[in-house]
Amino acid sequence: MTSLPKDSLESPRFCGVPSFMRLPMPATAEGLDAAIIGLPSDSGAPFRTGARFGPNAVRAMSVMLRPINPYRGNINVFEALRVADLGDAPVVPGYEIDSLEWIEQAVRKVVDAGAAPCGIGGDHSVTLAELRAVASKHGPLGLVQFDSHTDTWDKYFAGKRYSAGTPFLRGVEEGIIDPSRSIQIGMRGSLFRDTDVSQSLDLGYEVLTTDDVFDLGFEAVAERIRARTAGGPSFLTFDMDFVDPAAAPAVETPEAGGPNARETLRLLRAIHGVNLVGCDVVEISPMYDGPGQITALLGATVMAELLALMAEGRTAA
Amino acid sequence: MTSLPKDSLESPRFCGVPSFMRLPMPATAEGLDAAIIGLPSDSGAPFRTGARFGPNAVRAMSVMLRPINPYRGNINVFEALRVADLGDAPVVPGYEIDSLEWIEQAVRKVVDAGAAPCGIGGDHSVTLAELRAVASKHGPLGLVQFDSHTDTWDKYFAGKRYSAGTPFLRGVEEGIIDPSRSIQIGMRGSLFRDTDVSQSLDLGYEVLTTDDVFDLGFEAVAERIRARTAGGPSFLTFDMDFVDPAAAPAVETPEAGGPNARETLRLLRAIHGVNLVGCDVVEISPMYDGPGQITALLGATVMAELLALMAEGRTAA
Amino acid sequence: MTSLPKDSLESPRFCGVPSFMRLPMPATAEGLDAAIIGLPSDSGAPFRTGARFGPNAVRAMSVMLRPINPYRGNINVFEALRVADLGDAPVVPGYEIDSLEWIEQAVRKVVDAGAAPCGIGGDHSVTLAELRAVASKHGPLGLVQFDSHTDTWDKYFAGKRYSAGTPFLRGVEEGIIDPSRSIQIGMRGSLFRDTDVSQSLDLGYEVLTTDDVFDLGFEAVAERIRARTAGGPSFLTFDMDFVDPAAAPAVETPEAGGPNARETLRLLRAIHGVNLVGCDVVEISPMYDGPGQITALLGATVMAELLALMAEGRTAA
Amino acid sequence: MTSLPKDSLESPRFCGVPSFMRLPMPATAEGLDAAIIGLPSDSGAPFRTGARFGPNAVRAMSVMLRPINPYRGNINVFEALRVADLGDAPVVPGYEIDSLEWIEQAVRKVVDAGAAPCGIGGDHSVTLAELRAVASKHGPLGLVQFDSHTDTWDKYFAGKRYSAGTPFLRGVEEGIIDPSRSIQIGMRGSLFRDTDVSQSLDLGYEVLTTDDVFDLGFEAVAERIRARTAGGPSFLTFDMDFVDPAAAPAVETPEAGGPNARETLRLLRAIHGVNLVGCDVVEISPMYDGPGQITALLGATVMAELLALMAEGRTAA
Amino acid sequence: MTSLPKDSLESPRFCGVPSFMRLPMPATAEGLDAAIIGLPSDSGAPFRTGARFGPNAVRAMSVMLRPINPYRGNINVFEALRVADLGDAPVVPGYEIDSLEWIEQAVRKVVDAGAAPCGIGGDHSVTLAELRAVASKHGPLGLVQFDSHTDTWDKYFAGKRYSAGTPFLRGVEEGIIDPSRSIQIGMRGSLFRDTDVSQSLDLGYEVLTTDDVFDLGFEAVAERIRARTAGGPSFLTFDMDFVDPAAAPAVETPEAGGPNARETLRLLRAIHGVNLVGCDVVEISPMYDGPGQITALLGATVMAELLALMAEGRTAA
Amino acid sequence: MTSLPKDSLESPRFCGVPSFMRLPMPATAEGLDAAIIGLPSDSGAPFRTGARFGPNAVRAMSVMLRPINPYRGNINVFEALRVADLGDAPVVPGYEIDSLEWIEQAVRKVVDAGAAPCGIGGDHSVTLAELRAVASKHGPLGLVQFDSHTDTWDKYFAGKRYSAGTPFLRGVEEGIIDPSRSIQIGMRGSLFRDTDVSQSLDLGYEVLTTDDVFDLGFEAVAERIRARTAGGPSFLTFDMDFVDPAAAPAVETPEAGGPNARETLRLLRAIHGVNLVGCDVVEISPMYDGPGQITALLGATVMAELLALMAEGRTAA
Repeated sequence: MTSLPKDSLESPRFCGVPSFMRLPMPATAEGLDAAIIGLPSDSGAPFRTGARFGPNAVRAMSVMLRPINPYRGNINVFEALRVADLGDAPVVPGYEIDSLEWIEQAVRKVVDAGAAPCGIGGDHSVTLAELRAVASKHGPLGLVQFDSHTDTWDKYFAGKRYSAGTPFLRGVEEGIIDPSRSIQIGMRGSLFRDTDVSQSLDLGYEVLTTDDVFDLGFEAVAERIRARTAGGPSFLTFDMDFVDPAAAPAVETPEAGGPNARETLRLLRAIHGVNLVGCDVVEISPMYDGPGQITALLGATVMAELLALMAEGRTAA
Repeated sequence: MTSLPKDSLESPRFCGVPSFMRLPMPATAEGLDAAIIGLPSDSGAPFRTGARFGPNAVRAMSVMLRPINPYRGNINVFEALRVADLGDAPVVPGYEIDSLEWIEQAVRKVVDAGAAPCGIGGDHSVTLAELRAVASKHGPLGLVQFDSHTDTWDKYFAGKRYSAGTPFLRGVEEGIIDPSRSIQIGMRGSLFRDTDVSQSLDLGYEVLTTDDVFDLGFEAVAERIRARTAGGPSFLTFDMDFVDPAAAPAVETPEAGGPNARETLRLLRAIHGVNLVGCDVVEISPMYDGPGQITALLGATVMAELLALMAEGRTAA
Repeated sequence: MTSLPKDSLESPRFCGVPSFMRLPMPATAEGLDAAIIGLPSDSGAPFRTGARFGPNAVRAMSVMLRPINPYRGNINVFEALRVADLGDAPVVPGYEIDSLEWIEQAVRKVVDAGAAPCGIGGDHSVTLAELRAVASKHGPLGLVQFDSHTDTWDKYFAGKRYSAGTPFLRGVEEGIIDPSRSIQIGMRGSLFRDTDVSQSLDLGYEVLTTDDVFDLGFEAVAERIRARTAGGPSFLTFDMDFVDPAAAPAVETPEAGGPNARETLRLLRAIHGVNLVGCDVVEISPMYDGPGQITALLGATVMAELLALMAEGRTAA
Repeated sequence: MTSLPKDSLESPRFCGVPSFMRLPMPATAEGLDAAIIGLPSDSGAPFRTGARFGPNAVRAMSVMLRPINPYRGNINVFEALRVADLGDAPVVPGYEIDSLEWIEQAVRKVVDAGAAPCGIGGDHSVTLAELRAVASKHGPLGLVQFDSHTDTWDKYFAGKRYSAGTPFLRGVEEGIIDPSRSIQIGMRGSLFRDTDVSQSLDLGYEVLTTDDVFDLGFEAVAERIRARTAGGPSFLTFDMDFVDPAAAPAVETPEAGGPNARETLRLLRAIHGVNLVGCDVVEISPMYDGPGQITALLGATVMAELLALMAEGRTAA
Repeated sequence: MTSLPKDSLESPRFCGVPSFMRLPMPATAEGLDAAIIGLPSDSGAPFRTGARFGPNAVRAMSVMLRPINPYRGNINVFEALRVADLGDAPVVPGYEIDSLEWIEQAVRKVVDAGAAPCGIGGDHSVTLAELRAVASKHGPLGLVQFDSHTDTWDKYFAGKRYSAGTPFLRGVEEGIIDPSRSIQIGMRGSLFRDTDVSQSLDLGYEVLTTDDVFDLGFEAVAERIRARTAGGPSFLTFDMDFVDPAAAPAVETPEAGGPNARETLRLLRAIHGVNLVGCDVVEISPMYDGPGQITALLGATVMAELLALMAEGRTAA
Repeated sequence: MTSLPKDSLESPRFCGVPSFMRLPMPATAEGLDAAIIGLPSDSGAPFRTGARFGPNAVRAMSVMLRPINPYRGNINVFEALRVADLGDAPVVPGYEIDSLEWIEQAVRKVVDAGAAPCGIGGDHSVTLAELRAVASKHGPLGLVQFDSHTDTWDKYFAGKRYSAGTPFLRGVEEGIIDPSRSIQIGMRGSLFRDTDVSQSLDLGYEVLTTDDVFDLGFEAVAERIRARTAGGPSFLTFDMDFVDPAAAPAVETPEAGGPNARETLRLLRAIHGVNLVGCDVVEISPMYDGPGQITALLGATVMAELLALMAEGRTAA
């Protein structure tokens, strides 16, 4: 079975209610290899909020994307991989812990149906919910995290343990992330404490700063990702603040000095051989985009590249 | 059969891909009393363009609306009237005449299924296509037109007969509008020729300027509408530039000095006893809205009021 | 002791970090009659979020206001009333219940120091926290609520009892609102249930819709407010969505068809003789304002009018 | 001789570099009755700046206007009055006094050629320069000032005598305004000193507040303007902050609570029999407009109404 | 004869109605070497529209540019090349084929007067009209196309042969492009069909992807352009979507991952020895720019570089 | 004594009126090593204005920054350097010369108290005022100027000697800049005269264009800065238009083709061993930023890097 998007050479892309890349919107994930699912929670956001509107903003720009990926041998992603858009998980705004539970349940349905969840956030705390759902089937996961922050703090305001700043400590504590197969890429900028980065190393993560990425080169970084995650299933999480604010202004915690869009895509396109059982693109708060909506377009493009990476893996397998 | 929208006290309104008022999106109009249909064409726009994005902008704001209308006896609109959102008619951008044909065909399917089409434009030329489809079933129609311009010019640039400035001359010429049961409401502002208004009178329309509306009072205007359209089926078309640009900035041809939102809604809520077989809200170009998207919200509210007017009629019948 | 704002005929208003109306910013409320306090929580917001940035947006526009109020006998508000800006209460984003507790504690310090808290929200749930603090000193309060919604629902998503939709049922249940001395003004628009308004009447509130306000006239409404609240201390809460979205686009739940700014101010300026022991202006989410920031300016103007009302009362006493 | 604008039913309004209402742009005012002239100075602005871009913003929106005015007997303004757009006066940004001198010289050329200058500002201090130029030919002028502020302060920051807050005291001192034939209309909002309004009365101006305008009614106000200015030549200055910020957000000193666009235009259209020898529309700072540019459109519409008032006078004469 | 722009060290750049780089605006191209001409048509736009406002947006930002180009030996472009701004070609909005005809006629007048047309679009279909006009004098042209898409599809919606997606197939079919002297530079992103790029190769174009540009280096690409176009007259067309959306958000079909502004300009400045008989910059839709208008500024800068390239050629000749 | 900012892991960054990096706001500079001071003057701006709102825009985004700088050995800047935010210098809008005098006086108080002034502009003319104040204590200063323009013109409009285009000629003339220890970095773009760059060389400055910066490499440029300024105290001035408009759109005179944010920060972080006695970041006009406010964020980040450079110097000393 294949589920193909509408052909934008036949009907204008602005026609119709926008699903991700104009894919079908079935009621369940049955028969799918991968499922787009919106995770519209921003209860974990410590500064800018509004990522609850992220999934639909990404969908609206994703209609500009086309199914064939020339960076992986002109693969038609949707012929290689059965994908659909399942709409959004329900959330409870203002109630972080309940929201994570509801998201976990929604993602678990996708996982239980045999499909890889492809989440569109939402603040970064939603990844913890996804990891819980995916690990319930696949066991401890390798984590590939693109981000300008480690998000491995212990607590945030009022001693709360759940926020966009803590998921990757919680995930290790809960045994759903295998830090020895995990890597954090893109850290940069000023720090709260002098342990902001070392706390990740202490947990067992490999960490590459933004400067490391440019000093090593994209090919070498891609190879490190492959090597680090080898031997098991992995989850790739892409926080849009990995990218420089000039190319991704609409994020919740922008950090000046990141890679631009071309560099980001060239790095993603260099990755091969990672066994992805789930992925997400998070932290898009569309009110902070200008009218050009470039953050949403780049977020959609990143997700399309992740789908192509999955499709390549399936074709290779 | 009833087709109820999602309950926004149960799931947050920002969850899910937005259909009009969170209504179901079936494939056809079968079994419906009324059908929302987007008409995303702006090929008829003589100045500002971008109304191709109007339907989805209205949908996105319509999720804030609720099903019960207190201005018509707390009627639950969707229990009284079976309504759904059918998505958009296809169009051919840059080809005005083809676009009108494609829209007519799409609307004709709605009409043939027995439902009243409720269009969301698109520039005002789309109304001509709707009128053709609706009149093919119901015969010559009474027209209730809210607008700051008469749109009864003969030709526009390069002698073209089809544009947003000509539909209500064309409709009379084509015999699908019955001017003796038609009324134009809201004309104001500077004129191209000194016949801009009299050309409508010459065609047989009744014309009320914006000043007339305030001098007569809303109740009297509503009664004139009822009296004028009595005796047959009617189509109500609402050009958002009827409203003042402060309350509806995102229109294609704004005209300073119109009614505000409260006055507009009070006038619409005063109308009773019109036999509507179709309606539309047109000329919303969302790029010209500010971040508050007040034009789209008001457009959605106007459409909800028109649905309530239809529902009241059905309940009364 | 008086605490006067900087004179904007002496130093430009754009000079310096903006406090409310350029007032001093002491560490505590000691010696004050009234204290501006920001309540930057949006964890109760069911749709649009971002009111956490409301207090500073209002401050930034408030520097345009001047100390003398010609609508109450050219009173110099800050000579009649000792006012200062205390900065913001701390909150816990994403944790609604904790946020309300922290806000209550911060407001209680103001109340305990003998000053009337003048809150700038924040979503409407912050008013519950303020009422708890104020009632702890003054006992059950008369409530004067300007709003397009009653906010007296019992529960919201996931059965949660605390959100921007529930404070004025909770307040009655907690015995801190005296509904027999309370009035809700401005209700309008479509409803979730046909009990949306009657649930307030059943609780004992007087309710005036937006249409009632115009049918009665501003003077009569102001007199009703005075009469209704007579005999005890009152709290006035002003939800910016009372105002039409054309004049206040930057609200969390806009409702088309409200009073404009002139009508709103004329109504507020007609109120006399209410014994205010606290007040607030809430639901400003500045990302939804255009560059003109008209919602923030109007919010600041409303607060300045409430201070003038307090000052008049003190002068009269 | 007539100088007609391009016909927007023949060529689209967006074609070509926009002059005011698509009028010709001759090198001098020879042979003209009235001349549009941009006055792009904002050196007098005490708060928001950017009015240097006002003239071109007004021109860009003015292309939507048409030559025939139905509110004055379907007069074709440009057949009755020879008008052209002379471009902008040069200014010296950051040097208020030099800028006023350069503007005066540019306007004097218009006046000396026998045309009435129709200025587009620029902050309100530019009116002083215009008055100097016009009075050099016509003697002391009656002033009709629409504004929410009196602008009759003596000094501003650093004791400077020239700014947007002082022109109408300076004009009286310089003997170029005859206060006994002058009227200020629209004052409202909070005051710096309790003499902000009485200082105008002391100078001999008649002053109507915004509340006065509504209490008297538009017809009565228009008659007062006619009566007050009778017996000599007058200059009409329209500060856009006369209008409510919802309809005119892009002003330098917005004041909540003014008339809306419909009310403003109805008042202007009620004026007859004023002998205008010059006029202006000032204080438009287009960066504060949203994408709909409603302030610029309203400013252009106001200027078009003033031209129609002049044309009516000429036809009557 | 030289025609110099206004000196922006003498009069502020914001003074006066903006022509391109403040150049004179004569009625015809007589005596000119090159002529700026706006081509405000967006009837060919398949997704975002609004490029009808592109020419004036580019003009408004072009006033920031200065006449001397330090990248080509401090050449004063307007002393070496007689240039003026001829305003806009007329178009027929909503009628793609008529618009192309009208544009062709307007450009033909420029060509017939002996000047090189320098078009500012408008969607990319306008280039077909320009090529027709230029080839009518110079014969089949070498084409240098900067673009992220090939625009060599055969048909678009409804089988239409004319749109922004087809001009460079049509041009080959019509014999006005010589593909053997033509090169397309910048292709990237996802594809509709796996022949999206090969269809250009099959037509005879040389094609360099964005990745090719970076792998070869700017100097090598510039040399390829020179070599490819040698031996005859050429037309250079610059689609702004060649550039990354971070630097050019206001395009009709943005494609993430392109060169930034510095890289783009360095490439253009490396080009020498191309015999340009016409050029254009297209696909700027200014509503999608933020308030900084960076796309319009970059578009103006690109055009200024193309004028410098022409001037260098003339000086060398 | 240390003066530490609020900890943003303890209280949300959006709580409270924003000072720079949430630092304390004492009344004077006593006891400080460095003092942030806003310089809100835009009277020197020749094109875009509005930098008077720059200081508060930078403060609002600076709350996202954290105290520890990993690029200089995880130094805690505020433990190494006593810093506070002193608010803004007063200015006289529209009076350039008076504004410079008032700024000089305010900065002189900082200098006299023994602290290094860290200015936030404001247009670039404010740097002349700072240099006067700093040189009054330290004698002629080495100048490190990041900028796309030399700002060494002699006169601007109307022969005025003081504007944003002249401070670095004036500073040499006044003997407060020692050009032999000074360097200008980042020049690019089109020129007014062919002496725009050579006039700086003639004055004795070293000049590196943007192309030079990339050709030499960041490390080499940083070493040149160290070598050039050796032997005495220096002032570093950072004009935000050094950066490309994609990363810094909100500047007064944008120049396409500059370094991006990552390149800019890498260059700044490579600088060591410069004896800074003052610095500034200027030319931020926040109305030209999109909603993401990326220019303000980058400006705040640049200032934080300059503070770290100072702190490193103090630690080393």
